[in-house]
Amino acid sequence: MLKKITTVPLPTIRRLPTYLRVLEEMRKWGKEYVSATDIADYLGLTPIQVRKDLAVTPIQGKPKIGFEINELHRAIRSFLGWDKTTEAFLVGAGSLGSALLGYNGFDEYGLNIAAAFDANPRLEGMEIHGKTVFSLDKLPDLVNRMGIRIAVLTVPRDAAQECADQLVAAGIKGIWNFASPHITVPAGVVVQNENIAQGLAVLSVKLAEKLEVP
Amino acid sequence: MLKKITTVPLPTIRRLPTYLRVLEEMRKWGKEYVSATDIADYLGLTPIQVRKDLAVTPIQGKPKIGFEINELHRAIRSFLGWDKTTEAFLVGAGSLGSALLGYNGFDEYGLNIAAAFDANPRLEGMEIHGKTVFSLDKLPDLVNRMGIRIAVLTVPRDAAQECADQLVAAGIKGIWNFASPHITVPAGVVVQNENIAQGLAVLSVKLAEKLEVP
Repeated sequence: MLKKITTVPLPTIRRLPTYLRVLEEMRKWGKEYVSATDIADYLGLTPIQVRKDLAVTPIQGKPKIGFEINELHRAIRSFLGWDKTTEAFLVGAGSLGSALLGYNGFDEYGLNIAAAFDANPRLEGMEIHGKTVFSLDKLPDLVNRMGIRIAVLTVPRDAAQECADQLVAAGIKGIWNFASPHITVPAGVVVQNENIAQGLAVLSVKLAEKLEVP
Repeated sequence: MLKKITTVPLPTIRRLPTYLRVLEEMRKWGKEYVSATDIADYLGLTPIQVRKDLAVTPIQGKPKIGFEINELHRAIRSFLGWDKTTEAFLVGAGSLGSALLGYNGFDEYGLNIAAAFDANPRLEGMEIHGKTVFSLDKLPDLVNRMGIRIAVLTVPRDAAQECADQLVAAGIKGIWNFASPHITVPAGVVVQNENIAQGLAVLSVKLAEKLEVP
C-alpha cells in the first residue's frame, strides 16, 4: 500500500477497477503483455493518462512489450487492498439491500458481506441470498466480536443519519452509503456516497441528444 | 430539454440526481425555498459550483430567498427527461440482473424495466421480482412492438459484445452497460458504462489511509 495515498487523484482510483477488468479480458484472449497504448485505445483514454494512473503501482512496463498482465493485475489489487478479503455488514435489508446481497460480484473486489441487519423485527433470522438478517441491536456486539470495519448502508433515506450514528458508535470506520445524499460522521470515519442514478442521468441526457439530432 | 446539451459538463449531469435527493429531503423538512449556498454547504460543494450546475434549468433563484424547491425539482427532472416514464429492457437475468430487477428505485428516475431477457432457456417464462423473463430471440420483435429504446445490459462479460450487437440490430439506442468495461457500438447509439466497484475502490483506498494514519 502506498504511503502518500492522498496524492493519488480520485478519478485515477475510480478507473483502477476498470483496468482490472480490461486486464482480465486481455488475459482471457491469451495475451501475456499489454501496453498502456493498447489499454488507452480500448477504453478511449489517452496513453499518458493510463501511464499516469498505472504509476500508482510499482510495476514498470518493458519497452516495446508493455506490462506483464498478471503482475500488473496483482499490483492494482494490492494497491486497492483487494488482495485480502474484507468482511462487511450490510444495514437495511429492503429492496436495494436485498439486491446487493444477491449480487455475488463483490468477492472479486475482496469484499464479503458477512451478514445483514434490519430494524424490522419480522426480518430477523431470515436468510436473504444466503445471508442471515440480524436485528439492528445485535450490531454493536457483532461488529466488535468480528472486528468489522466496513458497512454498506442501504436503509431508507430518513433512517440514514441515525443508522450512521449507530454504525460509528459501534466502531465502523468506512460507510458505503447508498441510503442518502449526505450523512455526517466524525473525522476518523470515511463515507463513500453512491447514487446509481448518476450513470442513468448521463445516459438519459446523451440519449435525448442523439434522438433529437438525427 | 435544452438544445445545446453538449455544453453541459458530465460532472454537472452526474450531480443532478443528488440535487434531486437533497431537494426532496429539504421538502420533507417543511422547507419551501432553498439557496445555492445551503445546498452547497449540505453537500460540501462551493456555492459557485451549485449555481453553475443549476443553470441547466431555466429556474431563477429569488434574491435572499433562493430557489422554490418544488419548481427546481420539477425543472431538473424535466432536464433529465425523468418527468415521463421510459420503458427499458434488461438483458441478462443472472446475479446482477436479478438484483437490478429487484431494485424498485428506478421509477423515481422515470425508468421502468418492462421485461427481462436471457439466453438460458431454463429461465424462459420465469418471473423475477415480478418481471417476466423472455428468451433472447424474442427481443427484436418486442423492442419493435413496444418501441423500446433503452437496454440495461447485465450479461456475463464474455457475452457483452455479442448481446450489444443484437440490441443495436434490434433498434436499441441507449445501453446502460454493467456487463463489460467496453463495448463497441455504431455512432447513433449511446453507451453508459457502469462499474459498481468504482465507489468501492475509493472507499477502500480512503479507509486504508485513515487506518494507517491514526
